[in-house]
Amino acid sequence: MQNKKETTGDLAVKDVKEKNNSNERKYRSNNRPNNKKGKKTESVKISFLGGLNEVGKNITLIEYENDMFLIDCGLAFPDQDMPGVDLVLPDFTYIERNADKIRGILITHGHEDHIGGLAYLLKIMKIPVYGTRLTIGLIEGKLKEHRILDKSILNVVKPGDHVKLGKFDVEMIHVNHSIPDALAFAIRCGAGTIVHTGDFKIDSTPIDGDIINLSRFAQIGEEGVLCLMSDSTNAERPGYTESEKKVGESFELLFKKAGNRRIVVATFASNIHRVQQIMDVAKGLGRKVAIIGRSLENVVSISKELGYLNIPEGLLIPIDMINRYTPEDVVLITTGSQGEPMSALSRMAFSDHRKVAIGPNDYVIISATPIPGNEKMVNRVINELMKLGAQVVYEKMYEVHVSGHACQEELKLMMGLTKPKYFIPVHGEQKHLAKHAMLAETMGIDKKNIVVPDIGKKFELSSKGIKSAGSVPAGRVFVDGYGVGDVGSIVLRDRKHLAQDGLIIIVATIDNASGQILAGPDVVSRGFVYVRESEALMEEARGVAQGALDFCVDNGIREWSTIKTKLRDEVSHLLYERTKRSPMILPIIMEV
Amino acid sequence: MQNKKETTGDLAVKDVKEKNNSNERKYRSNNRPNNKKGKKTESVKISFLGGLNEVGKNITLIEYENDMFLIDCGLAFPDQDMPGVDLVLPDFTYIERNADKIRGILITHGHEDHIGGLAYLLKIMKIPVYGTRLTIGLIEGKLKEHRILDKSILNVVKPGDHVKLGKFDVEMIHVNHSIPDALAFAIRCGAGTIVHTGDFKIDSTPIDGDIINLSRFAQIGEEGVLCLMSDSTNAERPGYTESEKKVGESFELLFKKAGNRRIVVATFASNIHRVQQIMDVAKGLGRKVAIIGRSLENVVSISKELGYLNIPEGLLIPIDMINRYTPEDVVLITTGSQGEPMSALSRMAFSDHRKVAIGPNDYVIISATPIPGNEKMVNRVINELMKLGAQVVYEKMYEVHVSGHACQEELKLMMGLTKPKYFIPVHGEQKHLAKHAMLAETMGIDKKNIVVPDIGKKFELSSKGIKSAGSVPAGRVFVDGYGVGDVGSIVLRDRKHLAQDGLIIIVATIDNASGQILAGPDVVSRGFVYVRESEALMEEARGVAQGALDFCVDNGIREWSTIKTKLRDEVSHLLYERTKRSPMILPIIMEV
Repeated sequence: MQNKKETTGDLAVKDVKEKNNSNERKYRSNNRPNNKKGKKTESVKISFLGGLNEVGKNITLIEYENDMFLIDCGLAFPDQDMPGVDLVLPDFTYIERNADKIRGILITHGHEDHIGGLAYLLKIMKIPVYGTRLTIGLIEGKLKEHRILDKSILNVVKPGDHVKLGKFDVEMIHVNHSIPDALAFAIRCGAGTIVHTGDFKIDSTPIDGDIINLSRFAQIGEEGVLCLMSDSTNAERPGYTESEKKVGESFELLFKKAGNRRIVVATFASNIHRVQQIMDVAKGLGRKVAIIGRSLENVVSISKELGYLNIPEGLLIPIDMINRYTPEDVVLITTGSQGEPMSALSRMAFSDHRKVAIGPNDYVIISATPIPGNEKMVNRVINELMKLGAQVVYEKMYEVHVSGHACQEELKLMMGLTKPKYFIPVHGEQKHLAKHAMLAETMGIDKKNIVVPDIGKKFELSSKGIKSAGSVPAGRVFVDGYGVGDVGSIVLRDRKHLAQDGLIIIVATIDNASGQILAGPDVVSRGFVYVRESEALMEEARGVAQGALDFCVDNGIREWSTIKTKLRDEVSHLLYERTKRSPMILPIIMEV
Repeated sequence: MQNKKETTGDLAVKDVKEKNNSNERKYRSNNRPNNKKGKKTESVKISFLGGLNEVGKNITLIEYENDMFLIDCGLAFPDQDMPGVDLVLPDFTYIERNADKIRGILITHGHEDHIGGLAYLLKIMKIPVYGTRLTIGLIEGKLKEHRILDKSILNVVKPGDHVKLGKFDVEMIHVNHSIPDALAFAIRCGAGTIVHTGDFKIDSTPIDGDIINLSRFAQIGEEGVLCLMSDSTNAERPGYTESEKKVGESFELLFKKAGNRRIVVATFASNIHRVQQIMDVAKGLGRKVAIIGRSLENVVSISKELGYLNIPEGLLIPIDMINRYTPEDVVLITTGSQGEPMSALSRMAFSDHRKVAIGPNDYVIISATPIPGNEKMVNRVINELMKLGAQVVYEKMYEVHVSGHACQEELKLMMGLTKPKYFIPVHGEQKHLAKHAMLAETMGIDKKNIVVPDIGKKFELSSKGIKSAGSVPAGRVFVDGYGVGDVGSIVLRDRKHLAQDGLIIIVATIDNASGQILAGPDVVSRGFVYVRESEALMEEARGVAQGALDFCVDNGIREWSTIKTKLRDEVSHLLYERTKRSPMILPIIMEV
C-alpha cells in the first residue's frame, strides 16, 4: 500500500497501479531532487499532548515550520485512584510555550473527550476554533456555562471545506460516529498529506442517511498520503461494527415486549441518533416521551434548535406530567447508562429520584455498554432496579447498543483506501494501539514505517522516514471544584493514605519559655476505627505520646521537627503493632 | 419436572414415568396422610447469611427442627467504595445466636470465597468442618496462619460419603469446578431432599479424568427432590462452558509461538489443573518452571504434598535461578491475573519486582478473565507490560482461560436431572439469579415454586409450598488489619470524605480562666490543595477562624461545642466559596 512516490514541498500525485495486498513488496526509494541541491527535507511534527490512558485522545498538536495547530481539546474522567478529582485536563504548557505559532484548533466532533477542555484553554489564550454546526453548537453551550463565550473565534465548517492554518491546508471529511456531524481531516503541508480519522465507524445505513465519505478517502489515497492516524478504540474487535439502525430494530421489538409497562431507556446524552430512534419508536406506539437528566436536556435542546433532532409535535411531555399518564403511554429517556452514582438512572435504582419511582410496572433498557472500569457500577444499578421489581434489559444479545468506533475490517478498509506511507495508531490504550499496529503490518505497511505513540511523545515525519523527536510536557492536570492544577500527586497521595487507614492527630501546647507541656497531648482520630471500639487504644496512644513528650522535655529537646518525628514514630509503631494499620499521623505542637 | 410425590418425614421414592419437557402439566397434589392426623407439615428453612453482591455465596444456613448446619464459610473482597478494608466477612450474629443448634460446616470447595471466613468463625466457636482432602488441606493452611489449627474438628470426606448432622443426612457428590475436589450436596431431612450444587461446571474431559457425577444427580432426581439450589454465576451465558483441556491446547500453541522468548503465565493460584497443564506443556518443550507469588507457592506446595499436582523431577527451579537460564528455557507461573496492585505480575509491569525484569524477550500470557470491577486494573498491567516491549496475550480468542461455572445448557441439564419441586438460584448477583429463575421457568418449573433470594432473607420449604420466613441478621463485617468489625459505615464515610476533598484542621489554645486565646488559631491541611498554591487561601481561612474565635471571646461564649461549630461553619463556607470543595473541617481547642 506504499507504492507511491512521496512528494516533498508540493502535492504532485502519482497514480497507484499495483494492487496492494502483499506483505512482500519493497518500498520505492524516495530520492527526490531537492536533496541534491542541499535543500532540507521538509518534515512535519506530531506531538501527543493529552489523554489519560488513551494516547492521542483529547488533544494532538501538528507542527510544520512556524505553524502549529491543535486537533481537539477534550478532557478525561478521573480513574478511581484520583479521589476527589472531577476532571482531568491535558497539560497546556507546550501550547502556552508556543502560543505565537498556534493558528487554530480543529474539532473532530462534539464529545466531551474532544471538546471538554476547550473552555480551560480558551481562558488562557484566544485561538480560532473550527468545527461543524452541531459541534460548534455544543461548544457554545460549554463556553456559555464558563461565561467566556466569544463567538468571534468560533468558525462553522462543513465537509469539503478547506481551512488555511498558516502553511497548512486542512480539508474536512465526513465520517460516521455515535454523534452526528463528525469529521476526519486531510492535513496538507510541504511535507505531504496526513489523514487523521478522528473517531469513526463506517455506517452504511446511518440515521441521517449521510454515509462516511469513503470515496474522498480513496481520492486522497490516490493523491498520496504520507501518514495515516487512525482511531484504535475497537482495534481488538474483529469484523464490522453494526449500524446504528440495528438498535432501532431492537427498540421496535423491545418496546412491544414491554407491553403495558412504562419504558425507561438510559443512553449517552450525546447520542442524538439514538435519541431520535427512541422517539420515533415511541411515537409509532403512541407513547409520550419525557427527557430526564440535565445533560440530556441540554443536548436535546441544542440538537432540536439546530435541526439535528426531529421531534414530532406533542411527543414530549415535561417530567412533572409523567404521572398523569398510564405506564403504557410513557417512555422516559434518561442518562446514567454508565452507572454514574449521581445520574438520574442511579437515583431511580436507589429510590432516590424525586420524580420517578421504579417498580414492577417498569421496563428498563440500558442502551450502552459499560466503559472499562464502570462494569461494577452498572451491575449495581441493574441489581437494584431488579430488586425494585423492574424488568431490566441490558445484554448485548438484544443489540440495544452498537459502538461508534470502527472494528478491524473497517480499520483495514481505511488503510486500504488511504494507502499511507507511515502509520500511527491513535485513540486507544497501549494494547489497542499495539493491535492496530499489527493490523497495519498485515496490510503490508513496513514495520519501520509504523510508530506506536505514547502520551508526551513527539514524532517527526518526512520523506526520509518517521522518527522520534523527543518528549513534550504532557502531564495530567486535575480539576477539583474551581481549582485547576492545584491538586497534584502529593495531594492525591495524602488523600489515598487518609482513605486507606484514616488519620490520628496528636496535639499538645508547650510553654515557650520553660519547654513544659501546658496542655495535652490529646489524640483525635478520623476514619481510623470506631471510637467506641478504640477508646482503650486511643488512651494507650495518648500515653505513648505523653511519654515521648516527657522524654523531650526531660532531655531539653526543643526543636519542633524532632519532637514531631518522635511523636509520629512512637505512636505509629504502637498502632501498627496493635492493629496492623498505618493511619496518617499528624502531630501539632502549639507554643504559648 | 415436578411429576413426583414429595415425601414428608421419610424418604420413600416414587418413580417418575413421564417425560418432563412441557410447561403445561400440573403438579400432583401432595396429600400425605400425616396431615390428616393433625400432624404438622414438616418444613426446612434456608437462610442466606453472606455475600457481598453475590447472594448465597460465602455462607448459607440450613435448619430443620432443632438442627442447623452451614454450607461454606467464605469471605468477599472489598468494593472500591470500601477504602482501606482488606476483607469482608459475613455477619456471624445469627450463627452465634443459634450456637447450640449448629451441627457442622460443610465446605463445597477450597476457594477463598468458600473457606476464607472459617478462621474468623472458628475463633468464636468450635464447629466440626467437613470437606474433601484438598479442601481440608487448604483450610489447614489457613488455620495455621491464624494460629488456631485444631485438627480434631476437621473431617475429610469423599464423594459418596454421608455425613449425619443431627437429623440431617448429607451426601457428598463430585462436581467439576476450577479447583479439584469440589462437592455438591444432597441434603436429606424429614421435609425432603435439597440438592445444593455448590460452584460447578460439567467438564467431560477434566484434567484429573474425574467427571461430575451426573448419574448420581439423576438417581437423586428420580428419588424426588424438594428443592434445587444451583450456581447462577454464568446464568447469562448461553451454551456450554469449555473444558479445562481446551486451555492446555492453547498453551501448546502459544508456547511454541513464544519461540525463544521467556514465557510468563499469570493465573489464579488455586487453579491447580491450570498449573498442571502449564507444567506439562513446559516439560514437553524442555523448559524449566519457576513459581512466583506467595499464594501460588502455598497452593503448589499443598497440592503437591497431597498428590493433586504431579510435578516431574527437576522441572521446578527456584526464582533466584531464573537468570542462569536463557529466556527460551524458562516459564514463570505467577499470580496477578486480576491486575491486583501488590501482585507479582503488577510489580513486574511497573518494573518494581525484585527478581524479574520484563522486556522485549518476554511473552506474557494472562490466563484469566477480569472479574467485573477489575477490568481497568488488568488493562493497566497489560499496557505497562507492552510499554516494556513484552508481547502480551490476553484475549479470549486464544482461549487462555475457561470459566469454572456452568452456562445455560449445563444449568438446564442440572434442573432436568434433579427435577426439583422448588428452585432457588444461588451464587450470583441479582441479575444472574433473575436470569437463572427465567431459565427454570422455561424448564417447566412453576413460577410460584421459584424464589429469587437476597442476602439476609430466610425461606421455609415444605410440601405445601415455599415462602418467605422473614429476615436474618446478615450485614457485612469489615476486616482491616487485625481489626474485625471495628470499621463500619461511619469510619468508611469519614474515609471517603477525607479521600474526596481532604482535611483542614483548625487548632487553638484557650486560657481556661480568662477565656482568652493563648495560641493559634493555626490552620493545617492535608489532601486539600497544594500548599504552595493555597498559602493565601490558608491565611484567609486563619483570619476567618480568628474572627470566629474573637467573636466567641467577645461574647463570652465558652461552650466548646458552640465554638467548634462556629469555626467549622465559617471556615467551611469560605472554602466552598473559594474552591467549590468541602474538605472535612476539624476544629481542636486546647485548654490551659
